[in-house]
Amino acid sequence: MNNQLLKMVKIGGNIINDEDALCSFLKDFSEIDEPKILVHGGGKRATEISEAMGLKPKMIEGRRVTDKETLEVVTMVYAGLLNKKITAQLQKLNCNALGLSGADANCILAHKRIVTDVDYGFAGDVDAINAEFIKVLLQNNITPVFCAITHDKNGQLLNTNADTIASEIAIAMSEFYEVELNFVFELKGVLENIADKNSVIQHINLKKYEQLIEDGVISEGMVPKLHNCFNALKKGVQKVNIGDASLIKNTTNLFTVLSIE
Amino acid sequence: MNNQLLKMVKIGGNIINDEDALCSFLKDFSEIDEPKILVHGGGKRATEISEAMGLKPKMIEGRRVTDKETLEVVTMVYAGLLNKKITAQLQKLNCNALGLSGADANCILAHKRIVTDVDYGFAGDVDAINAEFIKVLLQNNITPVFCAITHDKNGQLLNTNADTIASEIAIAMSEFYEVELNFVFELKGVLENIADKNSVIQHINLKKYEQLIEDGVISEGMVPKLHNCFNALKKGVQKVNIGDASLIKNTTNLFTVLSIE
Repeated sequence: MNNQLLKMVKIGGNIINDEDALCSFLKDFSEIDEPKILVHGGGKRATEISEAMGLKPKMIEGRRVTDKETLEVVTMVYAGLLNKKITAQLQKLNCNALGLSGADANCILAHKRIVTDVDYGFAGDVDAINAEFIKVLLQNNITPVFCAITHDKNGQLLNTNADTIASEIAIAMSEFYEVELNFVFELKGVLENIADKNSVIQHINLKKYEQLIEDGVISEGMVPKLHNCFNALKKGVQKVNIGDASLIKNTTNLFTVLSIE
Repeated sequence: MNNQLLKMVKIGGNIINDEDALCSFLKDFSEIDEPKILVHGGGKRATEISEAMGLKPKMIEGRRVTDKETLEVVTMVYAGLLNKKITAQLQKLNCNALGLSGADANCILAHKRIVTDVDYGFAGDVDAINAEFIKVLLQNNITPVFCAITHDKNGQLLNTNADTIASEIAIAMSEFYEVELNFVFELKGVLENIADKNSVIQHINLKKYEQLIEDGVISEGMVPKLHNCFNALKKGVQKVNIGDASLIKNTTNLFTVLSIE
């Protein structure tokens, strides 16, 4: 494939919650020369604002349920406060950022998660990405910044997993670009031993991934994260990396590279 | 001028606060065939959420001051909740809406209002509109939906008057389009007698406007609104109308048309 490189980065709560870390990350991100896309998750601000408003988090089997009030708060915090703060910071850094939810220009179409055992409320599962429009933005030197709010094209906004959004956008954009997808999180990579922060597994292919799950090395939150990674690789994304914020600065060689073979 | 027509509509709190009125307005708006732009103000939801969070509105001489906490709330509510709800509703109506703040793609550059007698806090006065990018959106059949949040390109978001935003965008777009700017508010138009809701002055030119101010017929909130209207007309906007939501449906002849001559 001889397509142009598109760099995608997904950041989570650990960076969003720390003003200095976010500032430093955005500076590094703004210095990426290639066309680029940022996807951001939530962070503790939504919980703080829910609490300030006197809302009680609704949990089922340890998982948060997006009821009507929670959807309002996450829409406000993710699509409003965080997305616009990040966008304004990137503009300061001369990166022509444009904040987007899935409803904007129908970028991310989703459906309300089907109720089987548990009703997660207004949680969205992604159906389609408007890759043509995202391409128009990139061609106009715009850097899309996605929050994790989608819609069902029937007027309903939906709370959606940010890792999944990053993977689905990466897959859709791989029709036009050679896509490198970077998941930035609190660890240096996928760890061999959770107690040793430097025990990064530097390369995981599909076979090793299946072995690591079988051996219980990958568990809990890493399972859906790696599922998203391999789903992206299987569906056309060229490169997927997992690591901490130094991954973007290229100052580290310690991170996890995922590949099919 | 032989340019294509661009219809702009600005809506305020009276429509945003009433779910049925908003729904009905958005249906009419979505049926406008021409390229179109929506600008929306705030409404009472920001006040409700401020109160729910235990914030006390800070007022100086009867005017609300945008302190740091208020800026967070209006950013959440205007750019998050309201903007995305409106966008999702328009998407349902097959209008390819894209919600924007002024920070997004540097659409509306502003500066923090200079402190003279009163410090209004994080209130923004508009300096420049990115008309080229807005044109790219319109050419891609996107309908921009602007909230009244701007930025200073130095990382600071700012709360800005929605009427002013509508006028400034209309002026900037008049370089490329024949612009019709419609201000939708709670009255049928500019009233001769505030006690008679049907005493609409159907045509006001610049000379009459000055006379009406001198006679005290136009006062309070109508003064800055009409100032914005005439500023737009003087700077290239072709048509400016003021009226209630029926203005958009073209089911009424009772509204105010403003013109220079």
